[in-house]
Amino acid sequence: MRATFMYGAGDVRVEQVPDPELKQPTDAIVRIVRACVCGSDLHPYNSMPTGDHAAAMGHELIGVVEEIGRDVTGLAKGDFVISPFAYADNTCPICRDGFQTACPNGGWYGLGDVGGAQAELVRVPQAGGTLVKVPAGVDEALYPSLLALSDVYLTGYHAAFMAKAGAGKTVTVIGDGAVGLSAVLAARQMGAERIILMGRHTARTDLGKEFGATDVVAERGDEGIAKVMDLTGGQGSHIVLEAVGHMPAYHQAYGVVRAGGVISRVGVPQYEDAPVGFGSLFGKNITLNGGPAPVRAYIDTALTDVLNGKIEPGKVFDQTRNLDDVADAYKAMDSRTALKVQLTI
Amino acid sequence: MRATFMYGAGDVRVEQVPDPELKQPTDAIVRIVRACVCGSDLHPYNSMPTGDHAAAMGHELIGVVEEIGRDVTGLAKGDFVISPFAYADNTCPICRDGFQTACPNGGWYGLGDVGGAQAELVRVPQAGGTLVKVPAGVDEALYPSLLALSDVYLTGYHAAFMAKAGAGKTVTVIGDGAVGLSAVLAARQMGAERIILMGRHTARTDLGKEFGATDVVAERGDEGIAKVMDLTGGQGSHIVLEAVGHMPAYHQAYGVVRAGGVISRVGVPQYEDAPVGFGSLFGKNITLNGGPAPVRAYIDTALTDVLNGKIEPGKVFDQTRNLDDVADAYKAMDSRTALKVQLTI
Repeated sequence: MRATFMYGAGDVRVEQVPDPELKQPTDAIVRIVRACVCGSDLHPYNSMPTGDHAAAMGHELIGVVEEIGRDVTGLAKGDFVISPFAYADNTCPICRDGFQTACPNGGWYGLGDVGGAQAELVRVPQAGGTLVKVPAGVDEALYPSLLALSDVYLTGYHAAFMAKAGAGKTVTVIGDGAVGLSAVLAARQMGAERIILMGRHTARTDLGKEFGATDVVAERGDEGIAKVMDLTGGQGSHIVLEAVGHMPAYHQAYGVVRAGGVISRVGVPQYEDAPVGFGSLFGKNITLNGGPAPVRAYIDTALTDVLNGKIEPGKVFDQTRNLDDVADAYKAMDSRTALKVQLTI
Repeated sequence: MRATFMYGAGDVRVEQVPDPELKQPTDAIVRIVRACVCGSDLHPYNSMPTGDHAAAMGHELIGVVEEIGRDVTGLAKGDFVISPFAYADNTCPICRDGFQTACPNGGWYGLGDVGGAQAELVRVPQAGGTLVKVPAGVDEALYPSLLALSDVYLTGYHAAFMAKAGAGKTVTVIGDGAVGLSAVLAARQMGAERIILMGRHTARTDLGKEFGATDVVAERGDEGIAKVMDLTGGQGSHIVLEAVGHMPAYHQAYGVVRAGGVISRVGVPQYEDAPVGFGSLFGKNITLNGGPAPVRAYIDTALTDVLNGKIEPGKVFDQTRNLDDVADAYKAMDSRTALKVQLTI
């Protein structure tokens, strides 16, 4: 089959590899129908050293179950499914808490002996706990929105959920990438009235407005912070959803947050240490939370909303390429000519 | 009047200074009846450089209103009062949110032109918003517990409150100082069933058990982390209350917290940067919160509990000295021969 590998920064290739096979009785093999490139894939695309190894890429997918192990329950060959970007047993205490991305029996696509999802086929460990069935015969026009439930929309949703976005709250979203825009949509679904989107790409912030942003702040750094403080009467934002992952976004987050407020991060941090002391978080009683989204915890409700037409998170996909052209998809997203690229297989 | 000043690490002196006077119409002057030394006072006691200035010390007090400005409402001369360790107007939007320590019209004892509370008299800005009346004629045996509401108990309470300690939760408290023990008492009041106290001073952990700790872990660092993981069946603690403020306690906190759990800090951080990335907080969806306790938000309920005998937070005071001997009080706490020293004036 064809599968995508990254050999170093800027070097993404489609290669022929053996088809994956069932290894554990809890595995399934899924034939991928749509996949995509994630904002988090751009981090290694910009920084991966050449030469040490090739990384199997991709972790978002919808597809059809092709094979199932003997211990997989609730699934059958031919089922159309969405896979969360991380696999999990969905039965352990941590999963029951709603934090499936920390499941001790779970893991990540593209790591160890599990392949990536920018491919024709993928082995899904813990398939019964991981995969979510989509009713048969769903309109192909809904595929982008179903694919968005694999990661991007529910990652934005997780940020808003952890921060308890809701009525009476001012929410500032940092980042006009696909996750940031998804966070806007989720915050609006949760009833937030004032949603300030910090971003400077008009095409993207326009979609942000369509998703529910009430204000757009194009300025960055101190200027952007001053603008948000101004918009909030000098108090700052109850909630800040940080959908970038770089340190300047973190600085911006604690710069605009209101005393007693929440910074919820879903941009994968490209740093380990950050300010948390008296001058940044502690002095103002700021809550910092977020992490890899436990998509599995949110997907059933969101799937209903997609099927009912209540939300259309797939609007973040503004380009489509074939798997053969995945290198172009990375290039388009990295150069910001594409917001998010969907891959047909 | 007599007042306490710190001139550098280890150098605490009582000096004669002019009595404070009303400066703003919202001020009051309080004659202090009891004050005390705070664990946070020990940070400068260990690190303050000599020679640049003398710092006015003390921020915990009960006393009697001696004078009030013309705009102070709800108070009269002769009222017996508790002062939260920070003053605040208690009417602005931030105070109404319950974060009085971030009040834009508030501030701290011992800073600017506001004196410290290890003294005979103190000027209290924003007195109407700050001071809480105690019913007349209260038994002097209750003074230690009333004094504990100025800071120490309600700082421990804040940690537990922000972390939503309650039924079904395992709470680990890091630090067997007076704030850590107060956090144990507060978590127990909130209904936490399992409370693991990390501390190695038996006299202190014994009081921790009396306050509600179900387990004591004397080990520190990796050994302490392993012990807590063992006690929690390998899952870690839902809630960690960090009542120290030094980096090893922070490392211990994210070492023992369960995925999806909360680290609530009330030990004043002696660091600005700390690990928050994938390997510490983000990967496990840990929430980090806490800060200077908005004592004013919690004091009314706690006062009722003290007056009714439901709680006795004043048990953390194991020694009493006169103000004249405040230097000995610092020495006793710094050498850990005292848990917390109460000052008579």
